Amino acid sequence: MRSKISVIGAGFVGSTLVQRLAERDYADVVMFDIVPNMPQGKALDILEAGPVIGYDSLVTGTNDYADTANSDIVVITSGFPRKPGMTRDDLLKKNQEIVSQVTEQVVKNSPNCIIIVVTNPLDAMAQIALHTSGFPRERVIGMAGVLDTARFRTFIAQEVGASVRDVQAYVLGGHGDTMVPLARMCTVAGVPISQLISAQRIEEIVQRTRDGGAEIVKLLGTGSAYFAPSASVLQMVDSILLDKKMIMPCAVYLQGEYGINNLYVGVPAQLGARGVEKVIEVTLSAEEQALLNKSASAVQELVKVMGL
Amino acid sequence: MRSKISVIGAGFVGSTLVQRLAERDYADVVMFDIVPNMPQGKALDILEAGPVIGYDSLVTGTNDYADTANSDIVVITSGFPRKPGMTRDDLLKKNQEIVSQVTEQVVKNSPNCIIIVVTNPLDAMAQIALHTSGFPRERVIGMAGVLDTARFRTFIAQEVGASVRDVQAYVLGGHGDTMVPLARMCTVAGVPISQLISAQRIEEIVQRTRDGGAEIVKLLGTGSAYFAPSASVLQMVDSILLDKKMIMPCAVYLQGEYGINNLYVGVPAQLGARGVEKVIEVTLSAEEQALLNKSASAVQELVKVMGL
Amino acid sequence: MRSKISVIGAGFVGSTLVQRLAERDYADVVMFDIVPNMPQGKALDILEAGPVIGYDSLVTGTNDYADTANSDIVVITSGFPRKPGMTRDDLLKKNQEIVSQVTEQVVKNSPNCIIIVVTNPLDAMAQIALHTSGFPRERVIGMAGVLDTARFRTFIAQEVGASVRDVQAYVLGGHGDTMVPLARMCTVAGVPISQLISAQRIEEIVQRTRDGGAEIVKLLGTGSAYFAPSASVLQMVDSILLDKKMIMPCAVYLQGEYGINNLYVGVPAQLGARGVEKVIEVTLSAEEQALLNKSASAVQELVKVMGL
Amino acid sequence: MRSKISVIGAGFVGSTLVQRLAERDYADVVMFDIVPNMPQGKALDILEAGPVIGYDSLVTGTNDYADTANSDIVVITSGFPRKPGMTRDDLLKKNQEIVSQVTEQVVKNSPNCIIIVVTNPLDAMAQIALHTSGFPRERVIGMAGVLDTARFRTFIAQEVGASVRDVQAYVLGGHGDTMVPLARMCTVAGVPISQLISAQRIEEIVQRTRDGGAEIVKLLGTGSAYFAPSASVLQMVDSILLDKKMIMPCAVYLQGEYGINNLYVGVPAQLGARGVEKVIEVTLSAEEQALLNKSASAVQELVKVMGL
Repeated sequence: MRSKISVIGAGFVGSTLVQRLAERDYADVVMFDIVPNMPQGKALDILEAGPVIGYDSLVTGTNDYADTANSDIVVITSGFPRKPGMTRDDLLKKNQEIVSQVTEQVVKNSPNCIIIVVTNPLDAMAQIALHTSGFPRERVIGMAGVLDTARFRTFIAQEVGASVRDVQAYVLGGHGDTMVPLARMCTVAGVPISQLISAQRIEEIVQRTRDGGAEIVKLLGTGSAYFAPSASVLQMVDSILLDKKMIMPCAVYLQGEYGINNLYVGVPAQLGARGVEKVIEVTLSAEEQALLNKSASAVQELVKVMGL
Repeated sequence: MRSKISVIGAGFVGSTLVQRLAERDYADVVMFDIVPNMPQGKALDILEAGPVIGYDSLVTGTNDYADTANSDIVVITSGFPRKPGMTRDDLLKKNQEIVSQVTEQVVKNSPNCIIIVVTNPLDAMAQIALHTSGFPRERVIGMAGVLDTARFRTFIAQEVGASVRDVQAYVLGGHGDTMVPLARMCTVAGVPISQLISAQRIEEIVQRTRDGGAEIVKLLGTGSAYFAPSASVLQMVDSILLDKKMIMPCAVYLQGEYGINNLYVGVPAQLGARGVEKVIEVTLSAEEQALLNKSASAVQELVKVMGL
Repeated sequence: MRSKISVIGAGFVGSTLVQRLAERDYADVVMFDIVPNMPQGKALDILEAGPVIGYDSLVTGTNDYADTANSDIVVITSGFPRKPGMTRDDLLKKNQEIVSQVTEQVVKNSPNCIIIVVTNPLDAMAQIALHTSGFPRERVIGMAGVLDTARFRTFIAQEVGASVRDVQAYVLGGHGDTMVPLARMCTVAGVPISQLISAQRIEEIVQRTRDGGAEIVKLLGTGSAYFAPSASVLQMVDSILLDKKMIMPCAVYLQGEYGINNLYVGVPAQLGARGVEKVIEVTLSAEEQALLNKSASAVQELVKVMGL
Repeated sequence: MRSKISVIGAGFVGSTLVQRLAERDYADVVMFDIVPNMPQGKALDILEAGPVIGYDSLVTGTNDYADTANSDIVVITSGFPRKPGMTRDDLLKKNQEIVSQVTEQVVKNSPNCIIIVVTNPLDAMAQIALHTSGFPRERVIGMAGVLDTARFRTFIAQEVGASVRDVQAYVLGGHGDTMVPLARMCTVAGVPISQLISAQRIEEIVQRTRDGGAEIVKLLGTGSAYFAPSASVLQMVDSILLDKKMIMPCAVYLQGEYGINNLYVGVPAQLGARGVEKVIEVTLSAEEQALLNKSASAVQELVKVMGL
């Protein structure tokens, strides 16, 4: 009855995700990377923490896609970070190629899996994974909104001195400069933040959320965030594997919802055993819808560059 | 009633430990590093996972020891890894200097804390921390045995197809080539492994345990283990902070126990609110005692090089 | 550094709460009851589950208040259930006497503790505990709103097929027929339930919430609810002991908030190390405020009967 | 991918087990009892704790076996306790009838399930369940040894002031006066208890373990233990459902192991997805084997009375 999850890419997001999945103890986990020996080393290190933490998950590192066969869920984290001198389109093309190749292998080995895409630029990469896989949209989901929302919630909690558990929020739209933190719907223990925080501070927090990834990159000096991103994927896996039917913002291939067609955009989605089981349409203000459209346009441009 | 824990050194062992501590949600955690901004970045990333995982631990990154003030527990992970061209003694001297300086600052800011040393060469570094701090031995403990034992248990569990929870084992002695995995006392669900595994295979597993750190280093290509090391420190912190009085192998400053004097060597110790509350003296065979003595001699040599 | 919690009354709410507290492993727990041997028996049974679940909490059953000395938190669950032939006022007088006597002993042994009252009728019993203890209002809190809200959330989650984690709701007012489930502020993943459920169904769910305790009593045939009530107290203890500063509806002695004076009524409160650290005033509609006033009047009447 | 577990009998062991299973959040749980409405009431109470604790397990109470259909695991807790004036054989016959009827219904509705028997007298009831079900022995397991061992470990931990996690122990044989606590193999952090506790105290602790159930019954005044028994079943379910392959003492239908044939006796068994995956034969001393034989004879007598 044990499930099987594969994580493609053993970088920091990938390997920290494998750590988190191993600790849940509900599935065996395969970590794939093209770098020889490295995923095996990280897998062994994670395995060796098992006796102390108390888990028995079988964690395997591999350079062979065959080991990912018959996974229930596959998480794709592979991809290049943007390097100095690289244009945005260079990066896009580069990662398009990677995600496309990875998806082919994933589908070949796990034709019934649910794919969660984490590679950036997120929405575009989800689109290429859907395209390559030939899967129905229910089974190809992008992770971005949970992370963006977690950051938004963190900043709000700090601002008002509340528990993060009490902050309810949503960030919609593409994962990038055009994301749409729905400040209007953000509440602290049910109280709208407009009653707790000045409009100007809210705007600053919204902007900080948009720049959330860059803030970490700048502080770290080298590399980018991985603790919160891996936690965000974990929540999606939890809801799917345990069929919890939780609602969280995910990049979903929209087909008319929010007036958007044939495009991955971040919206609230209910995740369960079948993947995306429902897209939740919250009523947006005209301004919010305009921002969402703008965000969708930005994704659409990337899709065009990829030639889809 | 919240406790405070500081972790000195925001490398992979340090920051993954901070992640684990934050998830326990029982203390506020400060992560110090001399590299500007980096600990702040990692702390923020960990904090931003809070809303998703559900913890409210206050996690702070800092370059200022003042922020570690009044910690209940301080974990020292700072130190250089061995680099090509560096002699063993060069490394020893280098890390002696670091741990000595760190300890001074730690003691100045948290005169009543319990110190857990993780920097290598472990036993020698614990000795320098004790020396510098002027603390009683109860409050300066080295982490090595939990990790070595976790590896030993992992290998045994894999060999016999058992849950890691069912494997009971001990690794004593210094953290290095001379460590002493007590194969004779290792059991799987109470059954001595000698009834389950051939003597030759046991010897191979013992040797693999001794080389456990090197195995990971070799596989990773660059860097060393951090998932299992950070989990091992977590278990020590748990037992101290929650006063669980668990017994686990730790580097303790022996004063006559096992016939060893004034030296840090790995032995089973009971950890509680006061730190090392008891050294457990298991009856060793003559051969085991000889191996332990040999291991102690190796530590003694390092101590001599350090001029203590 | 371990904390100490005492639970007065070893009935089902009390003993299941002790089970839950033991599993958190962050405090030693004393369970007091006047029935000889019984709390000792339940405590031993809970203790004997420790090796299997993995906790080391020291759980003690006692008939002597001296064993509760120096508790950080004391939970009062003692009291009679309403029996056939007993008038409401009979019950009130009976439990007033019990809670009054218990509080005296609690205060004598733990003068600095935080008291959580669970005995019914809840708001009146909190008032008598405050009165008897002479404590500031921060340290005498009644548990009711978390439970009522949990029921409301359960019914909403079932109605829309969502995860209970995604339902945000509040129930204010006294714990009884006059409680005020704030349907207007109830959301599922941020979406107001008015967009998801018909007004008539919402009204039915609100009524079912009001009758939530009676529904269980009727189904059980004998006895009343204890699984959800004990979980609700656990959440309050968590927020206090770990200083999480979570906001949840609690019975708090109002002094002007919501226009109510010198009376225990359920309102959102932030719980931390100092007990009630803040009363949250959400903006109520005129209708909601009227319902809250009506609920407060019902509590006021009980208080009058008690002669306070 | 969610599993399904049914618990037959909604008494205290049954309903507390359902609480524990719901909290694991890995399966939907059905609680059956013949008493009308009562299991529905307890299930609802457990469900209403979900929003507070954070689980989404679907918990259902029922009086109809059809609702247990296609369970992966079924736990049978139904049965009478021994009442004054009832002979031991009266009780045996009474519960034989109950377990036989229950098993028929269980098998009819869940032909591929794994059955865990908890009803007393345990070993005899497991035998009747095996007989009635026609299942292979792998799929009919009795719970007793985990509980007896948990008690033994608790007493040892208290005696030496250690964490329960550090006490390794085994209780073999039938669940009753003839059980065989293997004091010789009991260790605290690997140290044999003979080095820590006097022979006389060990004998007292062994006897207290044998009387462990009666001790609770006597203290409670009315009713018997349920916190530790339900925790013990949970551990068995964990190992089966998550295929953890943990080894724990269970009542298993022996076929030659330990020189015993066609009889349920408590021995160490490895539990995984297929139920009992292996019987572990530890080497017994002549005295221990004699005690085990005596215990087996006691079970054999009951089996004879039942006419099997």
